Amino acid sequence: MSGKRFTVAVIGATGAVGEAVLSVLFEREFPVAKLHAVSRDREEDETVLFAERPVELEELDDFDFSSCQLAFFCAPAAVAKKHAPRAVKAGCWVIDVSQQFRLKSGVPLAVPTVDSSVLEALATEPRLIASPGAPAVQLATVLQPLAQQFGLRRVNVITVLSVSAKGRAGVNELAGQTARLLNAQSFNSNSFPVQIAFNVIPAFDAPYESGYTHDEQGDAAELIKVLKQPRLKVSHSALFAPVFYGHSQIVTVETERPVTIAGARAVLAKAADVDLAKAGAEKTTSIGMGTDSGSVVVGRVCQVEGDDHSLTLWTIADNIRKGAAVNAVQIAETLLKSHL
Amino acid sequence: MSGKRFTVAVIGATGAVGEAVLSVLFEREFPVAKLHAVSRDREEDETVLFAERPVELEELDDFDFSSCQLAFFCAPAAVAKKHAPRAVKAGCWVIDVSQQFRLKSGVPLAVPTVDSSVLEALATEPRLIASPGAPAVQLATVLQPLAQQFGLRRVNVITVLSVSAKGRAGVNELAGQTARLLNAQSFNSNSFPVQIAFNVIPAFDAPYESGYTHDEQGDAAELIKVLKQPRLKVSHSALFAPVFYGHSQIVTVETERPVTIAGARAVLAKAADVDLAKAGAEKTTSIGMGTDSGSVVVGRVCQVEGDDHSLTLWTIADNIRKGAAVNAVQIAETLLKSHL
Repeated sequence: MSGKRFTVAVIGATGAVGEAVLSVLFEREFPVAKLHAVSRDREEDETVLFAERPVELEELDDFDFSSCQLAFFCAPAAVAKKHAPRAVKAGCWVIDVSQQFRLKSGVPLAVPTVDSSVLEALATEPRLIASPGAPAVQLATVLQPLAQQFGLRRVNVITVLSVSAKGRAGVNELAGQTARLLNAQSFNSNSFPVQIAFNVIPAFDAPYESGYTHDEQGDAAELIKVLKQPRLKVSHSALFAPVFYGHSQIVTVETERPVTIAGARAVLAKAADVDLAKAGAEKTTSIGMGTDSGSVVVGRVCQVEGDDHSLTLWTIADNIRKGAAVNAVQIAETLLKSHL
Repeated sequence: MSGKRFTVAVIGATGAVGEAVLSVLFEREFPVAKLHAVSRDREEDETVLFAERPVELEELDDFDFSSCQLAFFCAPAAVAKKHAPRAVKAGCWVIDVSQQFRLKSGVPLAVPTVDSSVLEALATEPRLIASPGAPAVQLATVLQPLAQQFGLRRVNVITVLSVSAKGRAGVNELAGQTARLLNAQSFNSNSFPVQIAFNVIPAFDAPYESGYTHDEQGDAAELIKVLKQPRLKVSHSALFAPVFYGHSQIVTVETERPVTIAGARAVLAKAADVDLAKAGAEKTTSIGMGTDSGSVVVGRVCQVEGDDHSLTLWTIADNIRKGAAVNAVQIAETLLKSHL
């Protein structure tokens, strides 16, 4: 790696993912010469922390990307749609964490620890690279090594989403509802269609005729795109649980070749960014082991007796860090080696 | 139905299920002449409510079953093991809600709304009948009609358990931990291996070599026994969520014959004790629609595009009422017609 340092912009720097990108860039010692923290709706003199120092927020509408080599878009899809193309036009590599471009044909969608070839194949001029949603990052991290060893025929995933998938608003709604319930006060639901405190709610964004929602099918399509397995059958059902951070997934795979629990564990033990829980699998929960981690933690690995072409896994990952910020920075690190 | 009335004992009358059995017997107008509320560890002069009147608790160790025609055992397995056989010997029909006898060969295991033939086939002398666990009751209620119409090849179930599966202790642990967390106080975990407030925990009772736990495999075996399909492959994974009452299940079935969403909905609309959610499926949650109900509510019905032999359903049921008390009383109602 050369000693070059880069001018980097983080769009949506005050959001949960933006903040995590700032932390991860610093922790992983990404070579930042100057950091621009950019936001749509900043207050006068508002700052965020980067490298333990306050950085003043800049306004997105006026922001000039031509001074930057790299921009992380950690903002809603509509913001990426409006501003990411002008960043690329200004000569900036864009890593977009939003849904906006992930499934567009020709847009690379990357989980670099699983497969960096999609990045290495890029030409030298700056362009936009999409980072998958947290459920697909978590899935791909675990399934790619299993696919290589055993082949995948079908995947059935349940994602137990934490409320931070709905950003700060989701976190505040769970905390506020819980406090008000314990004090016998009434409350409203905004981020969720019904009470989320002490409840679980199936995915509720736009449902398709298939019964699955836009997001559930999107996550499945992202997985298929990252794994480059267009014919893989993926059933993905999601639900929200009253958990603040960390998604849990129960993943059942049907493999092409016979598989054993021990064989799968051996493969996963060597996989990048996968931690195999050693202690009791019952302790593999978002609180404690999963959050604030850059890995996907695999707890239980189960197999129905007499069924040697199938496995069920329990995995957890921090949706904000591993599922978004760490993957985005890993994309940047891969570009660093070949393109920046 | 004759005008006969019966002397009925409820063992474990102060527990969550015992209390619910008392309510359900009254609501459904079971012909009770005299009700004995029985407990292992009663306080002096302690009472429970039945038919809106206080009933004094009696001590289990000294209790004479010979005056009863029917006893509901709503107590732990060890209590059923010790006392249920002497109740039968005393000439009493026993409906056991515990795990103790469910999978014993020769013991009828019944979800009468789904299949009452196992009860109708019994001889006239009193004996013990087991009621399945709440996950198996919920599953069988939905899967039996689908099995009859489309045939089942394989079932993949995730049960999101509420803490009341661990009885009053589980309910108190979630409430207490939540309150202490909101007040920044420390707390212990007893019913659960790690913090349950704001967390989800995979099944943690005795794990087998298969990776599944005793309870997960037990629930699967109970389903197979109720459906009388010994060769059905069932993968059952369970997790606890910080929800007080009501289990949610995500059930993926592979069918023998082609199935459509509309076809499955039509079958379920006619099924006993199944409610098809009409409003947005996102409102099909334990809070509101599911609890305090005697039905299994089916929310979402999903199908992966191009996969006409598979469906995924979202169902909820009150684990204490439908999953235990209502089913136990429905067993008694079936006996009433033929045996009592």
